[in-house]
This record gives sequence, structure tokens and C-alpha cells, in this order.
Amino acid sequence: MTDEPFKITLEVRDYECDLQGIVNNSVYQNYLEHARHKFLQAKNVDFAKLTAEGIHLVVIKAELEYKKSLKPNETFTVSVELEKVGRVRWAFLQEVRRQPDNELMLKGRISGVGLNQNGRPHVVPELEPLMNDA
Amino acid sequence: MTDEPFKITLEVRDYECDLQGIVNNSVYQNYLEHARHKFLQAKNVDFAKLTAEGIHLVVIKAELEYKKSLKPNETFTVSVELEKVGRVRWAFLQEVRRQPDNELMLKGRISGVGLNQNGRPHVVPELEPLMNDA
Amino acid sequence: MTDEPFKITLEVRDYECDLQGIVNNSVYQNYLEHARHKFLQAKNVDFAKLTAEGIHLVVIKAELEYKKSLKPNETFTVSVELEKVGRVRWAFLQEVRRQPDNELMLKGRISGVGLNQNGRPHVVPELEPLMNDA
Amino acid sequence: MTDEPFKITLEVRDYECDLQGIVNNSVYQNYLEHARHKFLQAKNVDFAKLTAEGIHLVVIKAELEYKKSLKPNETFTVSVELEKVGRVRWAFLQEVRRQPDNELMLKGRISGVGLNQNGRPHVVPELEPLMNDA
Repeated sequence: MTDEPFKITLEVRDYECDLQGIVNNSVYQNYLEHARHKFLQAKNVDFAKLTAEGIHLVVIKAELEYKKSLKPNETFTVSVELEKVGRVRWAFLQEVRRQPDNELMLKGRISGVGLNQNGRPHVVPELEPLMNDA
Repeated sequence: MTDEPFKITLEVRDYECDLQGIVNNSVYQNYLEHARHKFLQAKNVDFAKLTAEGIHLVVIKAELEYKKSLKPNETFTVSVELEKVGRVRWAFLQEVRRQPDNELMLKGRISGVGLNQNGRPHVVPELEPLMNDA
Repeated sequence: MTDEPFKITLEVRDYECDLQGIVNNSVYQNYLEHARHKFLQAKNVDFAKLTAEGIHLVVIKAELEYKKSLKPNETFTVSVELEKVGRVRWAFLQEVRRQPDNELMLKGRISGVGLNQNGRPHVVPELEPLMNDA
Repeated sequence: MTDEPFKITLEVRDYECDLQGIVNNSVYQNYLEHARHKFLQAKNVDFAKLTAEGIHLVVIKAELEYKKSLKPNETFTVSVELEKVGRVRWAFLQEVRRQPDNELMLKGRISGVGLNQNGRPHVVPELEPLMNDA
């Protein structure tokens, strides 16, 4: 794919920073999740609606590489690419980059699977056209 | 080592649960961090004090395997083991287990490094005696 | 009532502290909510179950007086008393006190109402026996 | 004052919603705090810098009226007006309004005081020109 990956722009909120004066490690997962949901929404897949219908997109693994730390008042982008890993498995490849210098703060790979109401693996047809091949 | 790993017992708080009715993925990092800080405190290493002194224990990688989801009102343990990875690198091996059935919810490996005031890698002597060999 | 109010004991978690090195203001609402849910649970009223049944205990006003700030590693109690304010209205009177010196950190009054599936005010019979008169 | 109050526009993030499918009560304080800090920043008062200099803007009371609940995917504004209450006391008047219908979700009054390094009340000269009379 030569397309630019999907991307949102956010800003650090002071309450997201901890004693060390930097964004707390756990907050990046919030950023990544929000970007994934915006990605799905932009593609007309509504996460809250899927949940209400009993289809759960379940994260089974998160791999997060912390490169640099975001600080108060900084602006950053969160990108999202979706990769097909198996019949019912997928992985989101995501990057958090400080702006305007585009410096890489965090690289994430979030792997998951669709589950139906019975907790069984389930192809989520809405996701299929959004996936790049691995 | 034949010792039992360090362990704390916590309880799910409803505000930690999301739309899906389960503990939100990012919250596990809070649990893990709190357990690491309690571990350090139990060993007489005060995280807030180290931070005030300019010594930062910096997470460089988090690998989280989500096995099952914690739900409202459930009690769980978070264990902590510290492994020496290199001269200035370490990794915390952690497990979140639901109680009383001891079912594994999440397995985490949090890798990091000590940094001094100048942002240079730094041996944190207080950690050395706490480490198992890799 | 001469009874001791219901009380839980918690401990500050470092991730709850912000740039100022103290527990962030918004976190006290988490503490208060958790204590209220534990109070209800202790009285055999399950908040998550009520929610699942379409009965919502809705907060309509929160008044929080911040007296002193909790810091890392501190232990504290959160108390809960429930007061009847009107036919369908109630108020939780709550205090956060640092331990072991019992110093008052925060005083809260959380007023609310029961709503049924249609969003109409609704007496929650389970709450009635738990209420003190105003 | 005939000026429009200062205002920021935000969007609900799914992780801010709880079991009830709505934004958790405590999260509104995060929204309000972020809007206050953006207000100060827009007026060239840097909250993180003040904190680093030992000047703390300390909240002593928060009064929050919950009118309606924000839901996933909704956009909203948070307004900020600063009122002089006494020599060293101030109050932020804030509203959270859903967009585009401008419906009032929450009304807040956050009262506070400036404190210096010694914890003594302290006029924060940077705030004076930003204040309306009560």
C-alpha cells in the first residue's frame, strides 16, 4: 500500500502526566485505543455498536516500545494500520509521533481477534476490507 | 529461586471497567506499575524518592498478553519478579491472576533501564540485589 | 445513628499522582465512587447488577471540599453515609481521611436519584433501609 | 463582560465511558481541568511552569451539577470563565455542552487559591488580569 496510514492528532493533557513530569506509560494505551476506534469509525465500523451487538474485538497481545516521553503541552499524532494475521486474527500497527518534529515516541503492535456472543472466534466482516496483508 | 514471587492483592473497581463491562486494557498497566512500585517499596527502594533525586527507572518495552478479562467485583493478585537483562537493563515479569481460582488473566514483561539526571543509562545499585539472573 | 459509618481503607497509587506530586483532584471521585459501590455491595446491593437491569443510580450533584492533598505511599480511609433527601433523592456523605493520623483530606456530598429504563425517577427499594434521615 | 467565554472542543473517548455506557462522573473533572489549563496557556500562564516554580494553584472546592450524560462519539465544548472571589481566591465557572445541539451536560464551579512554596496563600499576579468581578 502506498497510502498514508490513518492518523489522528491529539494533545497531551496535564492530568495524563505523572510524578515524573511525563505522560504515564499506561496512558499511551488510551491514545492507541482511541485512535483505533476513530480509525474504525472513519471506516464506518462503530466500536460501541459492535459491542452492543455482542461482537467483541478482543486484544490478545500488546507490544509497546517506548522511545521517548511526551511532555505537557505537546501535540502528537497516532497512526493506525490494520494487518491481517490469520483467519480471525488481526494486528494494529501504531505509532505515536510528537509534532511538529515527527519524532517517534512509541511504537505499538496490538494483536487481537473477533469474538461472538458465545466467546467463540468470529470473522468480523466489517474489518476485512480494512486489512493490509501481513 | 525457589521463593514465592512478590505479590499484591487488589480488587477491580467499577470505574476501571469500560463499555464492554470488563476492565479496560490500559488499566492492567496501572495494576502492573502499582505492583512494581510496591515491590520496590517492600525492598526499601522508594520510586517517588528516586524520581525526586533525578534517577528515572524508564520503561522501554511492555509486552502484555491478555488471557482473560477481569470483571466487576473480582479480586486478583499481581506478582512481580525482577530479572537482570544487561548491565543497566532489567525486566519485570508479572502475572495478574484472578482469585480465588488463580486463573491467569494477564502475563506481562516490562523491560527498562535506569537513567540519571542527564538522561544517560545508569546502574541503579538499589536494584541489583533484587534481580534474578535471566 | 450512633453506628460508625461504613469505611474502606485504600492506598495511594503513584499513577494517581500528577505533575504536582499529589493525588490529582479528579481521582478523589474515583475513590468516592469505589467506596459507595463497596458500601452498596456490603449491603447486598450490586451496582453492576442494577445497571444491567436498567436501574441507574444517577449522580446529579457532587460537592467536594479539598482540605489537604494525599501523597504517594499514603494510606487513607473513605467513609460512606447515605441520607434520604426526598422520595427518589438521596445523598452520600463521604470523607477521605489520611491514616494513621485521621487528618481530613476531602469532604464530599454526592447527591443523586434513581432512574428506571425509561429515564424516569424511580424509588430504588434496595436503598431505602440504608438511609439515614436528613 | 460581553465577550464570549473561552472554550475548547473535545470528543468523548470510549475508554472514558464506564459500565453504564456513559462518560464516568470523574472524567468531567479531567475535562474541566484540561480546559482550565488551556485557558491559562492561551493567556500565557503555563500551569506546568508555575508548578515547577513552586506556585500551586490549589483547588479548594469543586461543585459539579450533572445535567445529562455524554455518550461515545459525542463532541462537546468546555467553557472557562475566571471570577475573582477574594484577594487570593478565585473561582472558575465552567460548562460542558454537547455539540452541535449545545445542550448543557454539566455546570461546574471550581474554587481555589494560589499557594507559594511554603504553602502560604499567595496572589498569582498572572491571574489578576484574567478575572471577572464576582
